[in-house]
Amino acid sequence: VLKINAPRLLADLEALGAIGAASEGGVSRPAMSAADLQARAWFRLRVEEAGLQFHQDGAGNTSAVLPAAEATARTLLAGSHLDTVPQGGRYDGALGVLAALEALRTVQEAGVALPVHLEAISFTDEEGALLDMLGSRAVAAQLAPADLARPRGGLEDFQAGLGRLGITPDSVLAARRDPASLLAYLELHVEQGSRLEEAGTGIGVVTSVVGIRSAWLRFEGRAAHAGTTPMDRRADALLGASAFVQRARQLVLDRFAPGVVNCGQMRVLPGAFNIVPGRVELALEYRHGSEAEMDAMEAALLGLAAEAAAAHGLVLAQTPASRARAAPMSAQVMSAVEAAADRLSLSHRRMMSFAGHDAQWLSTVAPSGMLFVPSVGGISHNPQEFTRPEDVVNGANVLLYTLLELASSQGTTTRD
Amino acid sequence: VLKINAPRLLADLEALGAIGAASEGGVSRPAMSAADLQARAWFRLRVEEAGLQFHQDGAGNTSAVLPAAEATARTLLAGSHLDTVPQGGRYDGALGVLAALEALRTVQEAGVALPVHLEAISFTDEEGALLDMLGSRAVAAQLAPADLARPRGGLEDFQAGLGRLGITPDSVLAARRDPASLLAYLELHVEQGSRLEEAGTGIGVVTSVVGIRSAWLRFEGRAAHAGTTPMDRRADALLGASAFVQRARQLVLDRFAPGVVNCGQMRVLPGAFNIVPGRVELALEYRHGSEAEMDAMEAALLGLAAEAAAAHGLVLAQTPASRARAAPMSAQVMSAVEAAADRLSLSHRRMMSFAGHDAQWLSTVAPSGMLFVPSVGGISHNPQEFTRPEDVVNGANVLLYTLLELASSQGTTTRD
Repeated sequence: VLKINAPRLLADLEALGAIGAASEGGVSRPAMSAADLQARAWFRLRVEEAGLQFHQDGAGNTSAVLPAAEATARTLLAGSHLDTVPQGGRYDGALGVLAALEALRTVQEAGVALPVHLEAISFTDEEGALLDMLGSRAVAAQLAPADLARPRGGLEDFQAGLGRLGITPDSVLAARRDPASLLAYLELHVEQGSRLEEAGTGIGVVTSVVGIRSAWLRFEGRAAHAGTTPMDRRADALLGASAFVQRARQLVLDRFAPGVVNCGQMRVLPGAFNIVPGRVELALEYRHGSEAEMDAMEAALLGLAAEAAAAHGLVLAQTPASRARAAPMSAQVMSAVEAAADRLSLSHRRMMSFAGHDAQWLSTVAPSGMLFVPSVGGISHNPQEFTRPEDVVNGANVLLYTLLELASSQGTTTRD
Repeated sequence: VLKINAPRLLADLEALGAIGAASEGGVSRPAMSAADLQARAWFRLRVEEAGLQFHQDGAGNTSAVLPAAEATARTLLAGSHLDTVPQGGRYDGALGVLAALEALRTVQEAGVALPVHLEAISFTDEEGALLDMLGSRAVAAQLAPADLARPRGGLEDFQAGLGRLGITPDSVLAARRDPASLLAYLELHVEQGSRLEEAGTGIGVVTSVVGIRSAWLRFEGRAAHAGTTPMDRRADALLGASAFVQRARQLVLDRFAPGVVNCGQMRVLPGAFNIVPGRVELALEYRHGSEAEMDAMEAALLGLAAEAAAAHGLVLAQTPASRARAAPMSAQVMSAVEAAADRLSLSHRRMMSFAGHDAQWLSTVAPSGMLFVPSVGGISHNPQEFTRPEDVVNGANVLLYTLLELASSQGTTTRD
């Protein structure tokens, strides 16, 4: 029975994890950084040494391609991303790309002829260091020139990053794929939560990917001397911002569970011991599986921020930073994943993804699906992120069999 | 009747205010920055062009000296500081130095022979960009080698700054003055509050300078994925820190008025939209006129921080950053200021200083006093800081007459 080459996949994961590794553990490989460029070069070498075709598109997405005999065949895509958050882990993104590459190598070595082009793809900037999910949004034609003019990482850094990849805003917009050319998209990922581990289940079959919106909230008060300005006469921007942080959590727990909210960054200006903060910029992000609930959360959170600002004599401004719609996965792909898991005698359960993934964008142009493998302790976006080797291998084998299942159903797969 | 040269003093204030001026208004002249070095060079030129002696001591304090006939005479010091907070105003510190310089020029031009050396001094880093009140603490022998090894601005930047001034930790420690050589110290400053303006009073006679303590509080939690980590399983460092910010304000209002507290800076790590904050570093500062109340505030604030940390599953650590004792001013100097104001027919009132000043350190080695002039709207540490020209001139004349009064009482001034 066909299986992926487990030692080779694990060795690849190990080698990739050393690129951008920090001395204190973990991996920092933000998109378009020096470490990201090094990971891309390493991936290209792996593709070429396997005798697969290497391709980079106008959005900097890099692929390995195992072509079908027929040049006009459709493409069956599998992948994820090679970039990481700062001080992130070794599995998030990397597993999906390397397992897809391993699946292609396995099919090639077994001499199995498929009626589709198989493509293992790594999407640019999934983690949003400069422009959230740039690569998958470009492929799905979900980027407008205005998005490229206002990247959340700042225009100057973004333009420099594109230059390092040898791409331009125009080439990014031209990276869209013709939906008719795509059979399906499949992404293997670590769960980044502990539901599978706690349930003792081997494979998670993703039903939908949560919507995610983010914004910068700016609380504007008045910088003042921290000794001579009486406490009751201050317009302290940090008081308003910190009140919002407290109340936003309670609001979401009370009214929007299982939705989640995070305040991940705060810039306090001017930022000295002896100056009352005159301005705070707060990075807000929230997620929910339903777009209607996302709209309600947005209104409630912005209302809360306006209240917190007013209560402390501050002026509130908000700048949307990113927006990803909640994305249901393809029923046909879910069934194919379940059939593959059954064939390998692995337990599985359906679940929602609380993390955003490239699959949410691909789902707008191709039947898409995701499968999860357990994360130990549910820890992710953290150097301690860990998935056991047997789960890595099981996930890659389910990915392989799902691709074979989808390829064999080639004539019948439709958008749903 | 003797008066300072008002147009000359106002022109000096104008010229100094242009050094480190930001395009959006205000002045940024942190100690040992390029702008600070430029201000020092400008001050030296003014001193030399007035035919006064220029002096820089081992702590980088710069002075103009008008010597007495007798080389063994004691020194009557007046001054303040030329550095500013980032985006600060044009009067804080600058006024006290330039008015002292103007007083020396006035005495010199009038040919008045005094039995004391008159010295106009600018102290290094009053605002604490690198080491809070470095210059006045050095003169007062209130610095230990350990303080110089742990400057709050970081050791590397501090050493580079000393290098730019041509001084060393050893020379700083050697800058102490013999108390027997000092007759008194007098400092003119803008009030940085609105009590004088609201009362319609011309001159504030300072009775004591508040104690100030500062510390970095570190809230340590666990960085985690902001989507997949359920809200109730997070150890979000920003939740604990923001709860502390809220509660610290209420604690001080309820139990320690008229004491004040400020949280002026917050560093959120790793600092991304999609990562739950794993660590927050918070800059805490608090002030009170009584050392006993300062001790009680310290215990209460640190207790509150520990509670906020524990309530959110965080570990708290604190690193003291600076500590200045509450400092009563000399009764003899206060009387001399009041006599001078009376002589100039200016209204005056006694008041506490809620800002720290170099005078608090000088008070440990010489009878010290301060006089305040009104600040419009009480705004300070802010580009909008403003003191009306007539108040500038009145303050400088009271400074001049207070110096003459103290010099004439030379034989009788004692430590009190």
